[in-house]
Amino acid sequence: MIIDCHGHFTTAPAALEQWRMRQIDAVRGAAPMPRASELRISDDEIREAIENNQLRVMRERGHDLTIFSPRAIFMAHHIGDYAVSSTWAAICNEMCFRVSSLFPQHFAPAAMLPQSPGVETSSCIAELRRCVEEYGNVAVNLNPDPSGGHWASPPLSDRYWYPLYEALVEYDVPAMIHVSQSCNACFHTTGAHYLNGDTTAFMQCLDSELFRDFPTLRFVIPHGGGAVPYHWGRFRGLAQALRKPRLQEHLLKNVFFDTCVYHQPGIDLLTHVIPIDNILFASEMIGAVRGIDPDTGRNFDDTRHYVEASGLSPEACFQIFEGNARRVYPRLDAKLKAQGR
Amino acid sequence: MIIDCHGHFTTAPAALEQWRMRQIDAVRGAAPMPRASELRISDDEIREAIENNQLRVMRERGHDLTIFSPRAIFMAHHIGDYAVSSTWAAICNEMCFRVSSLFPQHFAPAAMLPQSPGVETSSCIAELRRCVEEYGNVAVNLNPDPSGGHWASPPLSDRYWYPLYEALVEYDVPAMIHVSQSCNACFHTTGAHYLNGDTTAFMQCLDSELFRDFPTLRFVIPHGGGAVPYHWGRFRGLAQALRKPRLQEHLLKNVFFDTCVYHQPGIDLLTHVIPIDNILFASEMIGAVRGIDPDTGRNFDDTRHYVEASGLSPEACFQIFEGNARRVYPRLDAKLKAQGR
Repeated sequence: MIIDCHGHFTTAPAALEQWRMRQIDAVRGAAPMPRASELRISDDEIREAIENNQLRVMRERGHDLTIFSPRAIFMAHHIGDYAVSSTWAAICNEMCFRVSSLFPQHFAPAAMLPQSPGVETSSCIAELRRCVEEYGNVAVNLNPDPSGGHWASPPLSDRYWYPLYEALVEYDVPAMIHVSQSCNACFHTTGAHYLNGDTTAFMQCLDSELFRDFPTLRFVIPHGGGAVPYHWGRFRGLAQALRKPRLQEHLLKNVFFDTCVYHQPGIDLLTHVIPIDNILFASEMIGAVRGIDPDTGRNFDDTRHYVEASGLSPEACFQIFEGNARRVYPRLDAKLKAQGR
Repeated sequence: MIIDCHGHFTTAPAALEQWRMRQIDAVRGAAPMPRASELRISDDEIREAIENNQLRVMRERGHDLTIFSPRAIFMAHHIGDYAVSSTWAAICNEMCFRVSSLFPQHFAPAAMLPQSPGVETSSCIAELRRCVEEYGNVAVNLNPDPSGGHWASPPLSDRYWYPLYEALVEYDVPAMIHVSQSCNACFHTTGAHYLNGDTTAFMQCLDSELFRDFPTLRFVIPHGGGAVPYHWGRFRGLAQALRKPRLQEHLLKNVFFDTCVYHQPGIDLLTHVIPIDNILFASEMIGAVRGIDPDTGRNFDDTRHYVEASGLSPEACFQIFEGNARRVYPRLDAKLKAQGR
């Protein structure tokens, strides 16, 4: 089975974005705040959005299941206050839940959190509980920078985040560490902020004892880990200079990298440098890079092809495509087993 | 000849740091502002600092010449105002000039600029002129984030930077795009901020027409280009989505990557993915990662070994070690030719 651990609902019906624009207008004081109940999207519209997009491409590429979360760039936790984020997260999470209900063989939901800059992280727990207990979510996306490119929150190792971690550990749910839209003109969202977020989060974990406090907490660092595998020697050397244990012991029971790296040499490096047990297949399709690589004739984000061409053993491919995901996302494993898979 | 294009005076005599601490105390209002003339460092002290450190390691590794600039983490342009940065830059640049005068066969100076957050970049030109005309500097370090991790300046493609670029073009001097100390708790300086700065700067160039305006401006992106070569497919795909020319035409006449990547697989990827003409040998020795890799028994930052072990042709190695540097840094080439090298 091929499990893509990183998909977002980037192709939701236009009504969703229109509702959000009304909410943003209201935040700006330019319109009344829309009610959640004013958003109406039918099951047929969701089916169409999925069947013509993600599910079509999954079938073309032979992906079986996608861990599916709200569109990352639209989380935009920097807009408005906690109430705004809370309403928006609830709407987006319901959308992904409905996708997973309509296509239970193909999509397992992951939740965005109602983060808001400066608000305590315990405020996210009610939505987390709802998404896990009522919606069957198998993961969450955690934004390490709810300010949207100003990095005004404490690092992930700070106790600011601990109430949320306690709930993640309680539910045995991993967090993908995924920033959202950059509202800082220095950072292109998908070309800089995403990759910087990945590198930054990894180094925050390295320069801390976070996983001593939470030995079962698990983070998935997307986009192939940002700059980390390419600079693995640098990080090993920094860990040594900071008198940390070897990265294998210090972080790799808790930190995993996805395969959203959009060319063969990058995947070759990732699979060569990072232990196979720490690599999770993902494409982030349909996402930031939708075009066809003129050098190969394939989609840049057709990462299955790179993984299969990277010279791994069948056992290693199985771990990357399925085995590791079943271990890192135990609620996904339970869901699959209940389906007889 | 082996030219290391990225070295900083990290081992300057302690009096330099002590003077800077007095200056910082004065910025905080805790002491009177020290005068530049109160800093006294003898030639013998400089000789000792260099001979026991950088020059010793250069001899061990067989590096012939280092492009030598003030310690990057100490630039700290976020501290104080323009006058503070200006005095500090003048002192640090004089130190590197003295190193290059004492060891003209081994060190060519590169300047830090007296940047200060929010101050117009034309304020850097006088120091640039002094460093090029009087000190023989062959390059400058340009900090794309003088705020120190808050990224409060405009992107490098903004006209804010153009007065400085005009002077760089006039002197035909390249700029290494190098951030300094992070004063944002989210960003570890050498483990996140440096790499993020590299990725961010590259994407700012990609998402702009900067090199249409300045066709002869040259940027060196240090630390192997941050996350860029590892994600080269992503950047090629983003360029395509942004309707830019291919990266070869769009950026690679103007953007170069150094080899400060501290393990073999990273250098293998860099030399495989990036055209040889765009790679400049560098180690950033003695820098952020000073230890010995227990997996290899060699220093993490002994990048000459990785380049030589990466299976390149002798011609490609020559370009990386010497040829490209002579082309990208014409004032270095002239200096070497004047020495009969």
